[in-house]
Amino acid sequence: MKLESLNAKAETPTPAGHRGRARRRRLARSIAPSESTPFTGRRIPAYNLLSETVLARIEDQADWILRNIGVEFRGDRTALDHFAQTGARIDGERVRFEPGHVRALCATAPSEFQLHGRDPVRTVTLGGDNVVLMPGYGSPFVSDLVKGRRYSTLKDFRNFVKLAYSAAALHHSGGTVVEPTDVSVNKRHLDMMLAHLTLSTKPFMGSVTAPERVRDSIEMARLVFGRDFMEHHAVMQANINVNSPLIYDDTMSTALRIYAEAGQCVCVSPAIFAGAMGPLSPAAVAAQTLAEAMVGIALAQLVRPGCPVVFGSFHSTMNLRTGALTFGSPEANMTTMALTQLGRRLGVPVRSGGGQITASNAPDGQAMQDSTGAMWSTLLSGAHQVWHAAGWLEGGLVMSYEKFIMDLDHCGAMLKLLQGFETNEEAFGRDAYFETGPGENFLSTKHTLRHYAAANYEPQISDAGPFETWSENGALTSDQRATARWHQMLNDYQRPEIKPGIQAALEDFVSERKARMPDEWY
Amino acid sequence: MKLESLNAKAETPTPAGHRGRARRRRLARSIAPSESTPFTGRRIPAYNLLSETVLARIEDQADWILRNIGVEFRGDRTALDHFAQTGARIDGERVRFEPGHVRALCATAPSEFQLHGRDPVRTVTLGGDNVVLMPGYGSPFVSDLVKGRRYSTLKDFRNFVKLAYSAAALHHSGGTVVEPTDVSVNKRHLDMMLAHLTLSTKPFMGSVTAPERVRDSIEMARLVFGRDFMEHHAVMQANINVNSPLIYDDTMSTALRIYAEAGQCVCVSPAIFAGAMGPLSPAAVAAQTLAEAMVGIALAQLVRPGCPVVFGSFHSTMNLRTGALTFGSPEANMTTMALTQLGRRLGVPVRSGGGQITASNAPDGQAMQDSTGAMWSTLLSGAHQVWHAAGWLEGGLVMSYEKFIMDLDHCGAMLKLLQGFETNEEAFGRDAYFETGPGENFLSTKHTLRHYAAANYEPQISDAGPFETWSENGALTSDQRATARWHQMLNDYQRPEIKPGIQAALEDFVSERKARMPDEWY
Repeated sequence: MKLESLNAKAETPTPAGHRGRARRRRLARSIAPSESTPFTGRRIPAYNLLSETVLARIEDQADWILRNIGVEFRGDRTALDHFAQTGARIDGERVRFEPGHVRALCATAPSEFQLHGRDPVRTVTLGGDNVVLMPGYGSPFVSDLVKGRRYSTLKDFRNFVKLAYSAAALHHSGGTVVEPTDVSVNKRHLDMMLAHLTLSTKPFMGSVTAPERVRDSIEMARLVFGRDFMEHHAVMQANINVNSPLIYDDTMSTALRIYAEAGQCVCVSPAIFAGAMGPLSPAAVAAQTLAEAMVGIALAQLVRPGCPVVFGSFHSTMNLRTGALTFGSPEANMTTMALTQLGRRLGVPVRSGGGQITASNAPDGQAMQDSTGAMWSTLLSGAHQVWHAAGWLEGGLVMSYEKFIMDLDHCGAMLKLLQGFETNEEAFGRDAYFETGPGENFLSTKHTLRHYAAANYEPQISDAGPFETWSENGALTSDQRATARWHQMLNDYQRPEIKPGIQAALEDFVSERKARMPDEWY
Repeated sequence: MKLESLNAKAETPTPAGHRGRARRRRLARSIAPSESTPFTGRRIPAYNLLSETVLARIEDQADWILRNIGVEFRGDRTALDHFAQTGARIDGERVRFEPGHVRALCATAPSEFQLHGRDPVRTVTLGGDNVVLMPGYGSPFVSDLVKGRRYSTLKDFRNFVKLAYSAAALHHSGGTVVEPTDVSVNKRHLDMMLAHLTLSTKPFMGSVTAPERVRDSIEMARLVFGRDFMEHHAVMQANINVNSPLIYDDTMSTALRIYAEAGQCVCVSPAIFAGAMGPLSPAAVAAQTLAEAMVGIALAQLVRPGCPVVFGSFHSTMNLRTGALTFGSPEANMTTMALTQLGRRLGVPVRSGGGQITASNAPDGQAMQDSTGAMWSTLLSGAHQVWHAAGWLEGGLVMSYEKFIMDLDHCGAMLKLLQGFETNEEAFGRDAYFETGPGENFLSTKHTLRHYAAANYEPQISDAGPFETWSENGALTSDQRATARWHQMLNDYQRPEIKPGIQAALEDFVSERKARMPDEWY
């Protein structure tokens, strides 16, 4: 029921401007971190779906895969040589490991490390009680309710870097937020890096699609952060996708090795749809993901012991009657929760498959049902980094401007939830009971007045107003309300400062590289 | 990314009709309970948001409230006398308790009991590892995408009883699923009971709005179940709302006493919006809910020791600037999780506030974002019974036909998730690795063929197909697709059998009662 009778009372101005504002604010903060309070890390326990026994069984299956089937490094002799030197069995391009061997190789990976932002206040920590949310990744299309669905361009890329920079609930600028399809394939990385490095100050991802693009990405980062600093500090992240099942192609393993040599963060993400790139069960997908990811993490450690890594995963389910990929399914959500536990046991930061993902073709009820459930499984199970936390639609084919905004509201809500709530004396509000009594309301108690401004998370586009007002205002659904919000965010966007010399150096680098190469579109 | 390349393969007919079907089905069941498999209870652990220390602090605050403020029973001397006899302090209509006193009075309440369906296969167990999902409750309006928003009628009431009966994911017929506003207020309960008892065989709720309506409800149930059976078996449930803060009005406490005397299930649900009917914090709302609910549960035990009870709650947050009630907020979800833990510690089945609730005015993205998050908090924290699991819109003012269908999909998904997944040998699918190898796909492995039909939960209206097909089919959003589904469910509905004598007795009872009373509309 709407509590209509309360409206009048709550709408009368509250005496927030009077004496005691600072104290009220202090108290408010002490019982409920508001959205404007920076997220300071998870303060609620992670949910453990699986028992230790069951986790050990999945780890044993990962060992079984690595011993009996193995992993292939196609076209990367250097990677195979690294493993050969540790005593692994090499057979052509296939490498097999005795149980426990790969896990032991992962032991030098740090459990927690910083990913530095160009502005130090944007530096994030991966691991521990920290949670880092990122926008979607890799969509060749964008859509919005004004212009519809279309190939994404560099302008869209820059827009999403700006939106992610402006979003309080995102801590990371992402990587290929959308594919800038109007730029030739061999030059995209230059424009993408330029955008991340100049339009945002949040951490970002570099290119992985060819060795020279990896090197360009690192070179551009060095122009901003300095070669010396980057020798011992991670400022960028690389997404190394395993070509599941059980294949590292040389593009990926080479990119992994170059980033690891440079001491930059390597996130190893197997990509498994249950029944297609692995057997059809959450247990099997979790075990195979663990096996595949550990091998990549081990390679990073062999290249450079102590290299910061993230245990990644990308997995989901399919409708096995139609072949359509499905997201946010209960089986996928359980796999996500299992993988987070497995990654935490491995002792490295976890990017758990999940995020706010959906196969829906519109930012509708299904989209948010899928996305919200996937996000709960991701965050409650204790993932440290969440990719695809905003914008993802149509199984990742589309980055939706409106869904981006809708997802941000839920990101903020989940960050609030991860901080738990206080049970101190002020939280219980005993004084309010003496002001009121049975049957009387608490709206005008001093306790409510002390806290009303900061107690509750305030989403941007949710509408809880009466039906009549909503109808008079055009009966806009949440996706329709989101249109105004992303326009406003882009209008309000303020470009962060950058030293003119650095800006010029970056632009010169891009121009020079572009001039040297003819456009290539594959 | 959609895995387009897999479509062709997956669309070719699979040999499900061939030999080994029974064995495949058996194996499939052994690794993944499918939607058609009846839900057999939670097999994953409950999430504990709060530590024992924090829970004890909230329990202490509940004790503080009961000792220092107390609860009023307005106009119900009998209730006060019950408490007086236990040594509680009575002051006018106020009763106060020493710490621990009320909790001790609750000790005779069973931790687990059955609520019998007219068809024994529909009998549910409340408590333990069981989860009972129910439709929404109490809406004066209904809406659908064809006819729009309107006052609900008896026809709508009957429709929702039929839909809940047909829904595999709902275990209970609910109570006042919608208000049949075309029937006079003093006769509604007769038509509602008749619908629950004849159109469904699932457990249901009786009227609480006046003592004679309570007695009519019990009498009608006795016509079906028999007086003797009901003396020792619960077949119906009563929703006793506390008039929070800290008030039981005599309508509610009298209804509670009559149901308890009859040995029927009493669910005691305080109703607290943080900052209005209690102090503004999750901790305070949880403590006050516990205090208020324990008093009602204690009264039921004093009336009839061993009376089956449910620890209920209804709570949420408000936008304190506008007075609008908000649902699915992080603060409300945390309160839900806290209350489930507190109820489990009290040792009685828990109906935790939550369910699939929203303040949204349309079955849009916001509606499903709110609802999905609230449902995760409810079910993951271990609630035994979930009210408002389907249909709720506009803060409960509206029961939406389309949202009912959308919610059902998520109910089914969550029931699948609550059953966890297997990690036995078959689940790991080792044989499939020997059939394939690195880089090869698993779609046509024997393991996938054994499991593809039953491995994954299949929602009814989710669409994971390509954008092009979806567009050609009219670009229907999930709410629009739901319209066809509820029409189909009503068309396919088959009325359960009932002995003609019982049907006639019920109808005679209703006619006779109606004939004795003039219509009253208040």
